[in-house]
Formats: sequence, C-alpha cells, structure tokens
Amino acid sequence: MCTRVGIIGASGFVGGELLRILLSHPHVEVRVATSREFKGEYVFRVHPHLRGKTMLKFVEPNIDLISKECDYVFLAVPHGQSLHLVPKLLEVGLKVLDLSADYRLKDPEAYVKWYDWKEPHPYPDLLKKAVYGLPEIHREEIRNADLVAVPGCMSTAGILSLLPLVKHDLIETSRIVIDVKIGSSGAGAHAPRLDLHSYRTYVIRPYEVTEHRHIAEIEQELSLVAGKPVQVAFTPHAVDVVRGILATSHSWAKRPLTEPDLWKAFRSTYGNEPFIRIAKDKTGLHRYPDIKYVIGSNYCDVGFEIDSRTGRIVTFAAIDNLMKGAAGQAVQCMNIMLKIDEKTGLDMTPLFPV
Amino acid sequence: MCTRVGIIGASGFVGGELLRILLSHPHVEVRVATSREFKGEYVFRVHPHLRGKTMLKFVEPNIDLISKECDYVFLAVPHGQSLHLVPKLLEVGLKVLDLSADYRLKDPEAYVKWYDWKEPHPYPDLLKKAVYGLPEIHREEIRNADLVAVPGCMSTAGILSLLPLVKHDLIETSRIVIDVKIGSSGAGAHAPRLDLHSYRTYVIRPYEVTEHRHIAEIEQELSLVAGKPVQVAFTPHAVDVVRGILATSHSWAKRPLTEPDLWKAFRSTYGNEPFIRIAKDKTGLHRYPDIKYVIGSNYCDVGFEIDSRTGRIVTFAAIDNLMKGAAGQAVQCMNIMLKIDEKTGLDMTPLFPV
Amino acid sequence: MCTRVGIIGASGFVGGELLRILLSHPHVEVRVATSREFKGEYVFRVHPHLRGKTMLKFVEPNIDLISKECDYVFLAVPHGQSLHLVPKLLEVGLKVLDLSADYRLKDPEAYVKWYDWKEPHPYPDLLKKAVYGLPEIHREEIRNADLVAVPGCMSTAGILSLLPLVKHDLIETSRIVIDVKIGSSGAGAHAPRLDLHSYRTYVIRPYEVTEHRHIAEIEQELSLVAGKPVQVAFTPHAVDVVRGILATSHSWAKRPLTEPDLWKAFRSTYGNEPFIRIAKDKTGLHRYPDIKYVIGSNYCDVGFEIDSRTGRIVTFAAIDNLMKGAAGQAVQCMNIMLKIDEKTGLDMTPLFPV
Amino acid sequence: MCTRVGIIGASGFVGGELLRILLSHPHVEVRVATSREFKGEYVFRVHPHLRGKTMLKFVEPNIDLISKECDYVFLAVPHGQSLHLVPKLLEVGLKVLDLSADYRLKDPEAYVKWYDWKEPHPYPDLLKKAVYGLPEIHREEIRNADLVAVPGCMSTAGILSLLPLVKHDLIETSRIVIDVKIGSSGAGAHAPRLDLHSYRTYVIRPYEVTEHRHIAEIEQELSLVAGKPVQVAFTPHAVDVVRGILATSHSWAKRPLTEPDLWKAFRSTYGNEPFIRIAKDKTGLHRYPDIKYVIGSNYCDVGFEIDSRTGRIVTFAAIDNLMKGAAGQAVQCMNIMLKIDEKTGLDMTPLFPV
Repeated sequence: MCTRVGIIGASGFVGGELLRILLSHPHVEVRVATSREFKGEYVFRVHPHLRGKTMLKFVEPNIDLISKECDYVFLAVPHGQSLHLVPKLLEVGLKVLDLSADYRLKDPEAYVKWYDWKEPHPYPDLLKKAVYGLPEIHREEIRNADLVAVPGCMSTAGILSLLPLVKHDLIETSRIVIDVKIGSSGAGAHAPRLDLHSYRTYVIRPYEVTEHRHIAEIEQELSLVAGKPVQVAFTPHAVDVVRGILATSHSWAKRPLTEPDLWKAFRSTYGNEPFIRIAKDKTGLHRYPDIKYVIGSNYCDVGFEIDSRTGRIVTFAAIDNLMKGAAGQAVQCMNIMLKIDEKTGLDMTPLFPV
Repeated sequence: MCTRVGIIGASGFVGGELLRILLSHPHVEVRVATSREFKGEYVFRVHPHLRGKTMLKFVEPNIDLISKECDYVFLAVPHGQSLHLVPKLLEVGLKVLDLSADYRLKDPEAYVKWYDWKEPHPYPDLLKKAVYGLPEIHREEIRNADLVAVPGCMSTAGILSLLPLVKHDLIETSRIVIDVKIGSSGAGAHAPRLDLHSYRTYVIRPYEVTEHRHIAEIEQELSLVAGKPVQVAFTPHAVDVVRGILATSHSWAKRPLTEPDLWKAFRSTYGNEPFIRIAKDKTGLHRYPDIKYVIGSNYCDVGFEIDSRTGRIVTFAAIDNLMKGAAGQAVQCMNIMLKIDEKTGLDMTPLFPV
Repeated sequence: MCTRVGIIGASGFVGGELLRILLSHPHVEVRVATSREFKGEYVFRVHPHLRGKTMLKFVEPNIDLISKECDYVFLAVPHGQSLHLVPKLLEVGLKVLDLSADYRLKDPEAYVKWYDWKEPHPYPDLLKKAVYGLPEIHREEIRNADLVAVPGCMSTAGILSLLPLVKHDLIETSRIVIDVKIGSSGAGAHAPRLDLHSYRTYVIRPYEVTEHRHIAEIEQELSLVAGKPVQVAFTPHAVDVVRGILATSHSWAKRPLTEPDLWKAFRSTYGNEPFIRIAKDKTGLHRYPDIKYVIGSNYCDVGFEIDSRTGRIVTFAAIDNLMKGAAGQAVQCMNIMLKIDEKTGLDMTPLFPV
Repeated sequence: MCTRVGIIGASGFVGGELLRILLSHPHVEVRVATSREFKGEYVFRVHPHLRGKTMLKFVEPNIDLISKECDYVFLAVPHGQSLHLVPKLLEVGLKVLDLSADYRLKDPEAYVKWYDWKEPHPYPDLLKKAVYGLPEIHREEIRNADLVAVPGCMSTAGILSLLPLVKHDLIETSRIVIDVKIGSSGAGAHAPRLDLHSYRTYVIRPYEVTEHRHIAEIEQELSLVAGKPVQVAFTPHAVDVVRGILATSHSWAKRPLTEPDLWKAFRSTYGNEPFIRIAKDKTGLHRYPDIKYVIGSNYCDVGFEIDSRTGRIVTFAAIDNLMKGAAGQAVQCMNIMLKIDEKTGLDMTPLFPV
C-alpha cells in the first residue's frame, strides 16, 4: 500500500519536518511539495539535511496537480491562508490535514475574538465537520475524518498537561494557570528582527502574556472534556532552545488528593496512548518531564506533583514542537485515518544528548 | 576612604563575581580571598577573566588574619558553613555579609523544616540581629546592621515581582504561583553529572517543584510586608542560559484592577529605587522584563499585566542571579552600611547582546 | 535473521547512542548492556530518552554471560580498558567492535609515544589482526574481520576531509593543517569542572593544541593511503554545541588545481559511499559542510574550495561525533560484517533545525 | 574636561556598544545618536539594556547639527555609507572615527578588488591621511589623527595573533593560515534568513572560505610591519555564540624556535599594551586564549605553542568582537587622540561566566 501525499507550504520548518518524516514513511510517497518562494528549486537546497534523501523540486501550489497526484494533503501555511483553500481541496476528494489555526475552533465568532478577523468564519459547516486532531481526545472521529485541524503546538502541551485532571474532575476549573516555555522554531522561518540569533539567544522573554491565541483551543477542548466551562490563564515565554515546549500547569485540587489518585487519573487517561510517557520517578535523571528527552520524537512526556502545603497540583507536558506539536501529530492523524499502526514512520527515538 | 574587605569562599561563581565588582570598587580594597581548594594559587588562575586585574593569591580561611586585614567580610560558602563562622567574625568586630542561607530565616525552627537540620538554629539571638539584605524592604535596618543575610537569588526575583501587589493589598494571598526560570550558574562550580554541559544544555527542566527552600524566605518577607500570612506555590525550572532568573508570578486580584492601579503600586514602591526599572511598554523590544537586558548589571527589571478575562495579575522580575541575586546585592548592602552612594562600583550597564 | 549483541560500557554517551540505534535495528537484538556504576538499574533511568523503548537493566560486565547471550559485542569503555578484555572476547568466539583507541594503531611502540603507556602494546599480533573501522578505506577487510577498531571521532572527520586529496596525490604531505571544532559530548559523561555547563558554555577554547592523540591515527591512515609518510599539524577547539565536529583542513596544492580536478577526486573517492555527501553548491543554504545538517545522522558531509591566490586547498568534513564519529560508524562496520545493507538501521535523516 | 561626541548609525549592535561605553565614560558627553529607522524614538526602546541610563532620542543624521553639537563623531554605518560622509565631517572640523571599511585600505584600487567597487576609491588623499586604528601598531599616528579607520573585527584578531611573529621575522610569510571562529553579532542587526535563531544556532559553518574582505587589511598591515609582502590564507567559521572571535593562526617557523624565543617576541611586542594579555599557562583554566574570558571587555588575549614535530607555530587571539573588535577599539583610539589614559571608560572586567 502506498499513499500519495502532497505538502502545501513545504519550505518552512513544519514543512521540512513533514518531509523528514514522510520521506521515510514506509506507506507513503511524497508527490508534491509546494513553495511559491522556491518554486523550481531542489528541496534539498532549502532543507540541506535532506540532501541525498530526495530529488524532489518545489512547485507552485496548484489544486489540479495536487488533486491528480495526491490522496492526502498537508497544509503547512500561515494562519488565514488555509481558509479558502481547504474547501477546494475537499471538493476534489482529498483528505486534508490542516496545520494552521483556520479550522480548529468550533465557534465561527471565535475567529473574530481571538484572530482579529473582520467577520465570523465563513464556513461554519466545515468547522463542524473538521476534527480537532488530538488523538488523545478525538481518535475515533479522526479515523473517519476528511478534514483534520491539527492542534497548535502550545495547545497540545497545555491540553495534555491538564487532560487527566479535567477528565476526572479533580481541580477547580476557574483558576488554572498554564506557564509555557518554548523554543525559537515555533516562530517559523520568516521572522522579524527579534528572532535574529543575537536577539533571540540568552532570553527568558514573556510575550502575549494574557491573550495568546492558543487559549481559545485549550479552553474549547478542556471544556468539551469537562462538560462545563474551563478557563485558563496562559503565559508563554521564549527560551533559548530551537525545539521544545514545556507546559507547567498550576491548578488547585477540589479536594485533598493523594499521589495514587493522580497516578490513577494519568494511567487511565494515557495508559494505552502510544506517544505519551508518564515521566515521574523517585530516582534517576528524569523525575519530571524535560524537553531534553523528547527532542526529535513524537513523544509527549507528562508528569505531576502534589503541593500539599498549598493545595496546588502542578502538572507538566514536554514535547518537540515540530513533532508532537505539529508535523508528527499530523502524521499520527494520517496513520489513524489510514487505519494503520499509529506509530508507523513515527517511532523515532529521541535524540539525546543534543 | 578605603574599606578593607575579605571574601571567604572566593573560588566559586559568587566569589568570582564579588571579586569582579570589588576589585573595581573605588572605595574598597580586597585584602583577603580564601579558598581551601586553591590556597597558594593566584586568583587569576581560577578566575581567568581577572588576569591583569589582581596578583592576589588564595589563602586558607583564618579568622585572625581576616580580623587584622579587613573591616568587612563577605561569606560565599555553601549553606551550613556560615553558621558557626558568623558569630566568630562578629565577635572580632567585623561587619559581616553572609551570602548563605544560614541567617536568613527568623524562626529557628524553620531550619528544621526547610533545611533538614536536626536541631533548631542554635543562635536565635543572632537571627534576630541579622537583617535580611533586601534594600527594597530593609534599607534602614541594613544601614546600621552588623550582620546582613543576603537573600537567595530566586527569592530576590520572587519577592520583587510581588512586593507592590502585596504591599498595596491588591491580591489574594493564598493562591499565588511563582514560576521561576533559572540559568546554570545558580548551581555553583561544584556540581553533579546533571550539570555537565551535555546534560544541562537544551533543557527546560523542572526541579524541586513543590518544596524549594527559597519558599521559606519569600513567605517570611511577603508576610512581613502584608502584615498577615502570605503563601506561595513555587516551581523552578532550569533553562539553557548561564546567568539569569525570570520570576513569573501569577496571582488573583482581590477586586477588579486597572492598569493605572498597578502603575501606581509599582511606582510608589519602586520609584526611588536605584536598581529597579519598570519595564512595561506598548512598543519597542522591551515590553516586559527579559533577562537579556539585565545580564552583567545589578538591575532588577519588573513588569506586570492584567488578565482581565480571568482576574489574574501576572507580574515579572528579571535579574542576573550572580549580581542582584547574590554578589551585586551584597555590595549594594555594603554601600548602604558604608553610607555611600548605593550605586558606587555597581553602576555597570547590562551587556547586550550577549 | 537476528543478531544478538552486547554493549560493554553502556551508560555513557556512546553507549546510549549504540542503544538508540541498536534497539531500533531490524536485524539485531540487544541482549546485554553493562555498567558497573548502574548495575541493576533500568537502562531508561540513565538514558531517559529510552523510556518506553526498553525494559533492559544494566548488568556487571561478565564474559561468560556475554559469550552465551551474544554474537557481537561493542566496547564503549575508556581507553586502556579494552586492552585485556578484547583477547578474552575473541577467544570465546565473539565478533568484537572496540570503540576505544586500544587497537587502532598498528605500531606497538606508538602507544608509548602517543598514549603514555609504560610498555609497548602487549598484543602485537592482535594489532595486526585488528581492522581500522573506516569503511571508506577498509571496507573489504572489515567484511571478514573478527576485531574492528572503530576510529576516533576527530580522526574520522580529519581523515575524510583529506582522503581524496591524499589518494590522488594532489597536495604537499608535509604541511597539512587540520583545525577541528568539536562539541561537548566528545568528552563523555564523566568529566571535570571545566565541562560543567557554566564553564563549557560560550567558549571557543583551543586544547591539546599540538599533540592530540588522534594525530597518530590520522597520520597512520593517510600515510597508508598515500604510500608515503603524511604529516599533519592538528589543533582542536571546544565550541558551544553538544554534538558535532567540523574538520577544516588547509593544505597546499602540488600543482595548480581546478575545480573539476577536485570534483573528480571527491567523486571518484566518495561517489558510491552510502554515508558521504559532497556538500558544495553555488547557491542555497549549504554551500559547504556545516554540522547543523548532519546532527542525528550517520552522514559525513564533505566539501572543498581552491584558494587560488595562495595555492591553498581548503577541505571540510562535518559529522555527528556520536554517530559517524562513534556509534553509527560501529554499526556501519557491523552491517558490513553481517553482509547486510550498510544502511540498515542507520538511515535516519538529520534532525533540522535543532 | 568633557568631550562632546556623536554617533552616526546608533541603532545597530556596534552603535549600541558605543553607547554602552560612552554613556559611562567620565570625560565624554553623548550629544547626538542618529538612526533613520528609529528617528524620534527613545534610544532605550531600541537598546533596552540602556533603560535608565539615558533619555536621549534618535535623530536623523544631519551634519549641521553634529557639527554644532559634537567634537568627535563615530560612524557605525554599513560599508559604503561612510565614503562621502567622512570628507564632509572632516571639513567642518570634526575628529572622525569610522568603523566601516571605507578608509581602511591604503591602495585605492584595493576597493575594486576586495569590495567590488566599480571605480577606485575617489579620495586617495584621504586614504593617506586616514590612520588604521590599531594602537598596537599605529599609536603615535593615532595621537595626531583627524580620521581614524577602525579595523575590522576579524582583522584585529588575525593581526594581533601574528604581529609578534611577523615583527620579529620568525615565520615564513607565504604560508600562513588564519582559521577564525566568530559569533553572530558580527553580522549586525539587519540580517537574512540564515541569521535567524533557528538557523544560526547549533552551527559550525564555514563561509567566504577563501576570499573574505578582511584579508586585505590583514595583509596590508602585516606587510607594513614585515617590510615585505605577507600573504595569508583565511577562513572564517560561524559558531554558536553571540559575541567573540578566536583567531587560530598556523604558520611555519623559519628556523627552529624555542619557547623562550616566543615569550621574548610576545613580551617585547605586547609587554606595555594596556589591553593585551598573554594567556599562556602550564596550569589553571586558561592555558590558551578563550573568548569566555574576554567577553564584555576590551582585552585581546593572545597565546602560542610550538609544534616541534611539524615545525608549525600556532598562535591565538581572542577578543569580544563588539569591544576590541569594534566599539572598544574606537574608544581606545579616541582616548589616545584626547591624550588621556587609554583605559579611561574602557577598563571593564570581562563578565564571567556568561
């Protein structure tokens, strides 16, 4: 079996990571990689790590071509650019995995509120049809989806750090803090002066400290799981690595909790998940999640601790933002849609030390 | 005027930073630098950046010598080693600035609870006499102190991020979260396998996530300012820089607050402080504190934002942990004790970009 | 087919990298991983990236056990510790891949000169029998070897940067300079104060600037290829990355050379090599080798330029020191010995950006 | 005494570093800082480390204003932009320190060859009048200069690594290799995609490997000192730090040399230099120059070793490229022109560890 895939927007970091995975995926053939900026150029000239792996050249995006050449298509384009492309790709019968934010939110008005759109989302029916591509919550729907909206990188870490607590109704849902630390590759390959090496090195820099757009997804999904509104206070911080996100979630227990209570919640939520590892240990080098041990892999390491003195529960989720936070998660969804082993082509061991 | 000073424990990072400052301080002469490990060795062989700045050699710690040669003495030794040394140094009439934790807490029992001592602190009278060396709270007492207990690095950032809110009674004092990010130099020059470059690079690593010892100081000082118990939930994270601490404090407003309310609280608390800069801007590269803009200086940059959607107040403090978090703060205290301009010898501009 | 392998010295960086590769190798089963320090401990507690990949525990080194359980054995132990172990392992019929320096040099006296041994190598017959494990020179001998001495990391880069020039007799062999830049993981997991993060970060630090031990291997192999003595002046520099080596080799052409001359030499030497990529381009991001594009892979990227003004030839080789510089190269040799595709289990794409 | 100074092009890294130094210089008042891009903006909004140090605003470049307000003017503009500005500034009687390359080369034709100018330099008389601002060679001429051409950063390190050898005629002058490693701040604040954090991190990247423009200055100055043509083969490498340059120079001794020979050459050349430290030691952490020990200071650390086996001499020079490689060197020249202590305002101790 060989699935033919295309990547729209293949010259950025997420596009490059999709290529890194899909070119080695045993059931996939990459047929099209688009880039307006680099059309006609060999892919390996823009992604030099792929030298020797492919002689593919970038082409301009072209729906006819993609329709003819591909069964599945990944969109790794900036927010706003998927919006009108997705209906056309669906119309010609393609399965679509959209890595932008354009189909993640269920409420058409939410795009006005969180993304500063002038009008509500113009395709409310497609929003309903789209499946939020987090297998840990929506695996069954992904299996039969035509359109998957792949979650944001910080949303993935934020949601997965809190899912067992919310699912088991263990915490107050009005006073949750998610404090995120993130590397530079989240910003993409086209970036402003502040992302130059000299400016972006040696920082611990808070940004969008009360109103980051990923809040909308996190609250949507956690509220769905909780069956009631969940509100999160969210602050991201740029730190001096390229890959990696750690979400540290601070919440307050509804009732006194013990460590076995939390083990139970985490094990029942994640025990069968192929890409979630519970990293909690009394000894060794890995007592809590740390990005260092997931880089280059699709793992999300989660962990927890009870602060019995204050009633706080602190939970963690560590991911590689380009893998479980973007390209890896998209391929995991594709594998589910293809009804093949979810780990196919995604089972790389983290690179350590890096 | 020339004050003669000694440094006990001068071979580590904090000792080196004290030397960097004091060797250029116009009113100070460094007479003694002790190190058991390196006795007899030129200081510049252990601190190569000081080559050409001093021909001093390390000597073994010796109270007679220090008593004869010095007026002021700085202790940059591991926790527990100042305990019995301080009374002897005071007895011979020295002014003492202790950078360890041994005299920071007022409650003798607190050392059993937080530092695992077998017995309560054996010198409760000295604890009373000791002044907690944070000029922003205790300037007047420092002026006349014989013994200053210089605050911990994360405590300094944690307290300064919250001081205006607590002082003006703006937040709930039972649900405060301090999420700290810290560089590697906080761990000192003698460190375990996990602090090797290959292990300590490319991390976002939570540690001592519910019970870090600095909590004791932070609660002591904030409770003192508030006039009632203040409780903090505190989690530090190792990140991949050498110097620098950012404390991000999440708290909940007691009543709806406006930006002018917070400006007023911050300005009235810090308006005359020589080393505190309020970093809050609508434009430019510095909308919130970032360690990048304080490295190499004694500045603490503070900032804030109101998360009106959730009722959260988020405040920040960024410091260089070896400066305002240790050696710089100690020299600031010494300047106050000497009744000279607080900025003397400490007015270095941050090094940017680094 | 499944080859049973053991790793002696499996708790360090090279041991961890062997595990990372071999646990995913389709024709291999890892049966034994030894560590005196961590015996009885789960492997994933020391190598947290392997959590979920193996439930193996470290055992003490034991020849009987290894003999019974394994067909192939990898030695990732400090220099000097393989010396007496290798004959015993060969005696019980194992195929041995030694990653230490103990069997790399052909001349028994060279160990006195370069490794400060008191006596010449005690097993000169084994030195003759040992094959220097650089497939680009010794592929045929490796195929039938019982004992492979896997090259040093900087030797690999140094030799591969110069091999086409020496093989085609294009340069003066008495005035070659190899200027190497190397990351911290080359130093191993047990390291001195200077390898702590705070000391090892932000360095460009020359060391062993005229007498590094890898010179002996480089001169041995290049002289063998040249059929006459080749002398190299060699200086390594520690730089602030964890993985990666770039060798920059400066030499002087024996006669005026053109770019086609060099292309011909490089293509004829490396055209069929599965892990060598010639990285030389007029445009794109990858005009010369850069470690950034090989991290996590077994590739060695090589490149060249003619400095016609001065008569100099400058050539480059970039590798991941833990892969092509150690564990990857060892597995490549094993694949050759097993007569399977050389790329089996080694075909991972470099991780970019990291 | 107070000298009034202006900085043209004050928004980049070199401009920021000039401000960092000059705002604290006891004999200087900064009157004008120009920036077209940021005119009207507070300086501290672009250089956030200067918050609290100055309320100066950027203005557009204006010769009348500068002429009225300033005695000395620093030009920190891109190459080519000083060319026509310098004559006008001289004409109105200003002392000019130009940090661009436009007045560094003595031969008007050299700008065609090395800088791709269409025509030779249009002001050959000014080239003659300009003094190459390396105090270690031209101190006396700088004293009376009206126009100083401040050397390039890699030129400074390259020349200073070789000066004692060339001055004392110890090496062959036709086979010198300078292998340079440099941080990202050398590229300036306006930089292409390759200088983004994600691309520029984790590199050891050779560039302009045979024809870098700094060769022209290095050969000009070393030939001048030698009294005969000196030719250098020069290759720079980008490494993952922000500040810092290490030049490693490989040359061949004309006759067998001893360590005392080299000590004599280095001491006689640099013994009285206020900013050169000979870093050569048998023990300690600083056996050879390392950028780690000069960051934030105007020091150039130099060192050497004899490779008696091959006849090679290897010498080193480590600088902070924004200090001794640019702004610090410019201020050192200004101090000489002002006939004040050369170290005035420049005597900062390196920041360690950073």
